[in-house]
Amino acid sequence: MTFKTLEWHDNALHLLDQRALPSRVAMIPCRTVTEVAEAIRNLTVRGAPAIGVAAAYGMVLAVNDPALGGALDRAAELFKSTRPTAINLAWAIDRMMRVANTSTPLERRVLRSMLEREAITIHEEDAAMCRKIGEHGAALLRDGMTILTHCNAGALATAGIGTALGVIYTARDQGKTLRVFADETRPVLQGARLTMWELMQEGIDATLITDNTAASLFGAGKIDAVIVGADRIARNGDVANKIGTYNLAVLAAHHNVPFYVAAPQSTFDPNIATGAEIPIEERSGSEVTTIGATRIAPDNCQVYSPAFDVTPNELITAIISDTRILPGGRFTKA
Amino acid sequence: MTFKTLEWHDNALHLLDQRALPSRVAMIPCRTVTEVAEAIRNLTVRGAPAIGVAAAYGMVLAVNDPALGGALDRAAELFKSTRPTAINLAWAIDRMMRVANTSTPLERRVLRSMLEREAITIHEEDAAMCRKIGEHGAALLRDGMTILTHCNAGALATAGIGTALGVIYTARDQGKTLRVFADETRPVLQGARLTMWELMQEGIDATLITDNTAASLFGAGKIDAVIVGADRIARNGDVANKIGTYNLAVLAAHHNVPFYVAAPQSTFDPNIATGAEIPIEERSGSEVTTIGATRIAPDNCQVYSPAFDVTPNELITAIISDTRILPGGRFTKA
Repeated sequence: MTFKTLEWHDNALHLLDQRALPSRVAMIPCRTVTEVAEAIRNLTVRGAPAIGVAAAYGMVLAVNDPALGGALDRAAELFKSTRPTAINLAWAIDRMMRVANTSTPLERRVLRSMLEREAITIHEEDAAMCRKIGEHGAALLRDGMTILTHCNAGALATAGIGTALGVIYTARDQGKTLRVFADETRPVLQGARLTMWELMQEGIDATLITDNTAASLFGAGKIDAVIVGADRIARNGDVANKIGTYNLAVLAAHHNVPFYVAAPQSTFDPNIATGAEIPIEERSGSEVTTIGATRIAPDNCQVYSPAFDVTPNELITAIISDTRILPGGRFTKA
Repeated sequence: MTFKTLEWHDNALHLLDQRALPSRVAMIPCRTVTEVAEAIRNLTVRGAPAIGVAAAYGMVLAVNDPALGGALDRAAELFKSTRPTAINLAWAIDRMMRVANTSTPLERRVLRSMLEREAITIHEEDAAMCRKIGEHGAALLRDGMTILTHCNAGALATAGIGTALGVIYTARDQGKTLRVFADETRPVLQGARLTMWELMQEGIDATLITDNTAASLFGAGKIDAVIVGADRIARNGDVANKIGTYNLAVLAAHHNVPFYVAAPQSTFDPNIATGAEIPIEERSGSEVTTIGATRIAPDNCQVYSPAFDVTPNELITAIISDTRILPGGRFTKA
């Protein structure tokens, strides 16, 4: 990768400001719990695995944060409240709290050092999980395929090469030539702003489409596989991911095109039986009605803007994880 | 309606500038063939029936347009080249040319008067067709239904109350309370900018969603029917309409929700056997990569932006026209 999504040095978490991409490439340092929480909330950093890693480093900063007086549980609660759907965030925070609670009382300096080590471990594990997902998924792709992806499940969404896009990078590194269509992914346009930027940085043949265009490509037989990421996976294999993912799963099933979800173990929630139990974040209507300085809808118009949807397992061909490929409930001829 | 989409007076075609909506309500006068053609091309006026009526008035202006020297066939060719997919445009031009060619040589003043009468007839017929479509379609809607629509097939797209939205207005006038979800309809956002504005003007309970959100509403059982317009209908009943329409047809079929197309006779093309023969306009990638002053994708990124897609008749429950309701190839339990 030619860029770092997040870095930890000089007692600060440095985040690539994803709100400014693709116009501007800038790192933003976060030195307090409030700064990290706000960066997660305002989408400076986004993507389920990446916000898990960011929150882990946020817990390191919590130890010496004067605003908290060392109350790590308050920091944990704050981070968990920023984005409710992605489970990786809660998973990372719980790991950090288990370390903090291992042996008490700890000297603050020792505690910080132990938490820093755990956060770095989570960071490195995430990068390693991306590599394993890439290896597993690349085996499913053949030379010459055209892949459709949604939102950004790339290096920008993780601390490694990405999940869905990691599969594409790994296949490319194996010598396979792939073509990618990227849904722009309204309302926040992660596909247009982030996935296109990332794929172009990596030299992948990528074409931007509106979310409305995907169906016509399926209809014309131009899509060979769909690969997306995930924000949370229930015990029955239902997948919560960026709004519009369920749409693609229905289209893929209708056109008999394989539909793959790429996600690390940290995205699986053992406490959730089915997708119906996954909390879905609703975001502000202003993300829909305003783009930059341009108002695109009437004043006071009603807006419904869930950030995620749930794809039932029966529409999924397979879930590509770091440990294995789990067959989904759908069987295709592909 | 509280507004006029187009008006003919003082030897000029006055168009409601749909590029400026919803921020600004302004009429633009067009006095030459070039001005009308440019207004059609740049989407000042849009919607298959409305551009047919606009082009008919443009042919009246052609008679005295010094740039043409009375060459009506050149004006006809110019108008037909502005937007290739909607057939109403060619249909209206052909009607105007038949009048022009009825008896030659005509005095220019007489010719202009005959053409003006024909354009006004086309205009009035369009309004009447909308009313009939409204009556036919409203019979299909029950009190309390929630309707999903795409793009703008309303008063702004016609010279009357609209096609898809005309059905909703007529049902409302019959005392039925309906709720409407409007897809924003990327890239040109006709749903956000035009349909929401129009529905709010008419006091209809309307909620804006991104195109990505429709699938989750279907999944939650919240959509009772889909109604869209059409730009061209082939002999076998395949329908070309705004990009994303085919997507909704697949979703509607998957969720067993009726999918209706509302369109006047002028949208049916007797010269086209199936949807595969309908020419699909591709528009500039800049409509995708730039919104207002905001660039939302990397410089030099590849974009694929067809303006329309084709929905096969087997996914259509019924086509609601001004003459009758034509059953489509899909049978639903609804």
